[in-house]
Amino acid sequence: MSYIQPKTLSGFMELLPKEQILFNKIKNTIKSNFEKFGFLPLETPVIESSEVLLAKAGGETEKQIYNVVNGEFKEEKKLSMRYDLTVPLAKYVALYYDKLTFPFKRYQIEKVYRGERPQKGRFREFYQCDIDIIGNENLSVLFDGEIPCVMYNIFKELNLGDFSINISNRKILKGLTQALGIEDKTAEILRTVDKIDKIGIEKVEEILKDDFSISAENIEKLMNFISISGSSDEKIAKLENLYDNELYVQGVTELKTVVENMKKNGIDENSFEINLSITRGLDYYTGTVYETFLKNNKNFGSVCSGGRYDNLAEYYTNKKLPGVGMSIGLTRLFDLILKNNLLQTQTNSITKVLIVPMTQKLDECLALARALRKNNVSTEVYLDDTKFKNKLTYANKLAIPYVVIVGEDEIAGKYYTLKDMQTSLQTQYNEKEIINFLSK
Amino acid sequence: MSYIQPKTLSGFMELLPKEQILFNKIKNTIKSNFEKFGFLPLETPVIESSEVLLAKAGGETEKQIYNVVNGEFKEEKKLSMRYDLTVPLAKYVALYYDKLTFPFKRYQIEKVYRGERPQKGRFREFYQCDIDIIGNENLSVLFDGEIPCVMYNIFKELNLGDFSINISNRKILKGLTQALGIEDKTAEILRTVDKIDKIGIEKVEEILKDDFSISAENIEKLMNFISISGSSDEKIAKLENLYDNELYVQGVTELKTVVENMKKNGIDENSFEINLSITRGLDYYTGTVYETFLKNNKNFGSVCSGGRYDNLAEYYTNKKLPGVGMSIGLTRLFDLILKNNLLQTQTNSITKVLIVPMTQKLDECLALARALRKNNVSTEVYLDDTKFKNKLTYANKLAIPYVVIVGEDEIAGKYYTLKDMQTSLQTQYNEKEIINFLSK
Repeated sequence: MSYIQPKTLSGFMELLPKEQILFNKIKNTIKSNFEKFGFLPLETPVIESSEVLLAKAGGETEKQIYNVVNGEFKEEKKLSMRYDLTVPLAKYVALYYDKLTFPFKRYQIEKVYRGERPQKGRFREFYQCDIDIIGNENLSVLFDGEIPCVMYNIFKELNLGDFSINISNRKILKGLTQALGIEDKTAEILRTVDKIDKIGIEKVEEILKDDFSISAENIEKLMNFISISGSSDEKIAKLENLYDNELYVQGVTELKTVVENMKKNGIDENSFEINLSITRGLDYYTGTVYETFLKNNKNFGSVCSGGRYDNLAEYYTNKKLPGVGMSIGLTRLFDLILKNNLLQTQTNSITKVLIVPMTQKLDECLALARALRKNNVSTEVYLDDTKFKNKLTYANKLAIPYVVIVGEDEIAGKYYTLKDMQTSLQTQYNEKEIINFLSK
Repeated sequence: MSYIQPKTLSGFMELLPKEQILFNKIKNTIKSNFEKFGFLPLETPVIESSEVLLAKAGGETEKQIYNVVNGEFKEEKKLSMRYDLTVPLAKYVALYYDKLTFPFKRYQIEKVYRGERPQKGRFREFYQCDIDIIGNENLSVLFDGEIPCVMYNIFKELNLGDFSINISNRKILKGLTQALGIEDKTAEILRTVDKIDKIGIEKVEEILKDDFSISAENIEKLMNFISISGSSDEKIAKLENLYDNELYVQGVTELKTVVENMKKNGIDENSFEINLSITRGLDYYTGTVYETFLKNNKNFGSVCSGGRYDNLAEYYTNKKLPGVGMSIGLTRLFDLILKNNLLQTQTNSITKVLIVPMTQKLDECLALARALRKNNVSTEVYLDDTKFKNKLTYANKLAIPYVVIVGEDEIAGKYYTLKDMQTSLQTQYNEKEIINFLSK
């Protein structure tokens, strides 16, 4: 018989059990923090009608869409796979508007799909972990101070080393370009300035001059502005009263409120900074913007980004739905964690105890297993008939911390022998004692 | 501006937040029981190379496959979406064979895709919750008694009413047809007999006679055999010594062992039964087979099925990998739960307490929120500036059980007013007391 070679497509992450256990722990940390702030869970289909999914897309994104060819049931509609979780959220809020409670706080941790060319650190199937707060007509800017606090708690708990949540407000730079009379080039300037971290200041200056004909004087003003330094309070003090353009003033006021609330929410000064050069490429954002960097892996780029937008679902409804959100690209982050060994996989087993029968009599083993599981202890019974050594090897390979040995002596004497796999120490316990010990 | 109508495709389940909370609880019950038995988590890509995915498929299944048209990156391979979790498991075990520890116990709770015609109770995207134990060359039949025990614990905990795990062994009916000299029609007989629950005994007898030319005498023997009655012990006693065909005897012996171990594993007699008419349509199964019925919804069909197979990955490798597994079709089951109101949604909120600021001063509110979240209490602060009544409405709509009111009096007196939303009772607490109360 000829075999088909088993393979997994490149750009699709597939983990070994130990890695998957670690991945799930991280995912669970993210989820439990989202829930601690009262975000509601949401799942949406992977496949949507192309018309709905591509209402807004275009350019690069549209090129990367995976389209789906129906099976048996040929639907008239064209079908596509979601490429982010924001468009499905917009559809969802527009569709169920009457049934939702606003402000609508939801989290969504699911996979999305982009058929791009596979390259280092890029995935074609990847997890996004999104939180968004959607208002009905209005949404207080105070929420812009809460969203990064959720992410702060997550990155603190994940313990990946120092990180910095970079924050800015697009209205400030937009107001500035109005004040400088180069308002018509705002989009180009924002997009160019956003690249400072990637291509450097000089290259940005060159593009502004050559491609967009910004005067030397204005480039200097822009660059001076972006390089304002100091603590967050000092930066805000410097920004205040610099220009009296309305949009500019509004942006600075919002930034000040957000920063104040980030502090009140417990974010330490060391873990965030005002960075006027970040603007997020997307036109979508209209106020606060965030990017998050791991200080020891700055070149990796942002691990958690987002911002404020005026109108979530403008393609689907006339309801005005402002919102603010952030997203963790979990698959990409996990890839970094694995490759750079950012987390010690302290414990990588699911099972806490393996019960090893030494005779054909299973009653005592199965009864103990039931009692342990009732006490929420993950328990396996080794049921295959093989040498004792092989059974211990199984426990070792899976990093199971304890083995319970049940032989004839144990059955006759009504006790269990517990072996600590790390110390090799063996202790005898009766049933009650062993359950107490293992369910600690 | 013209709007695109927001829509979700039929056959794709999309839930409101309250429903999603319930769904997640059920999913979590399933997951935590899987882990309590030491099953390792696994996730595989939704998209696989068609060649790999369709190695085994054919007939109806192949017609229902969703194919994927690449995005920007035109891969030479054809791509398809997985239609179950068994084929990806087979690929996975063949691919990572050297890195896995056997017996390999894994669970996988993920969505699969079938592009079939939408109809009542059928989904085109649905969750499967699979457990399998894969042996290397050999796998003790004792595991066949463990797998239904995992499912038993889940259905007990889900509390959906009485259920029955039906169990049989395909070798028995196969051995019987050998003994009757109608061995060449075994597949047809098994498939027909499997339909008894759906089409009734008379119709089955008719098909056996008309379509497969089974003699009246043999049909009677088959039917007598299938309708053997009594407790599981009585059934086994009746089966033993009825025929001396080798395969038959082996099947009865296995069934006896499995039933004994199901009992030792704590499955009560009321929750399982030997049912010789179930054979699982698929040729795939070679020994023990299971189907599970909710006693109050028998017409709904099996909610959890599976069985023993000789060779998991025969299309990918020459390694012999026998296994046993069961699967819950969660999306379909959840649909039944919702439509028949099988579960009271006792609590359908994520948030335990909503903190309501009555002044512009947020410090006390945010500090309390931080302290509560540190104690794992899901906490929201109402940040939008609106009437008190609206804030309480928000809590009511989301079924948040407690509201903390923080007004000028509270700030001055350093206390908090806690309102129980169910009784409307208000109590004053200091910070320590309120944290103690809410983190109980």
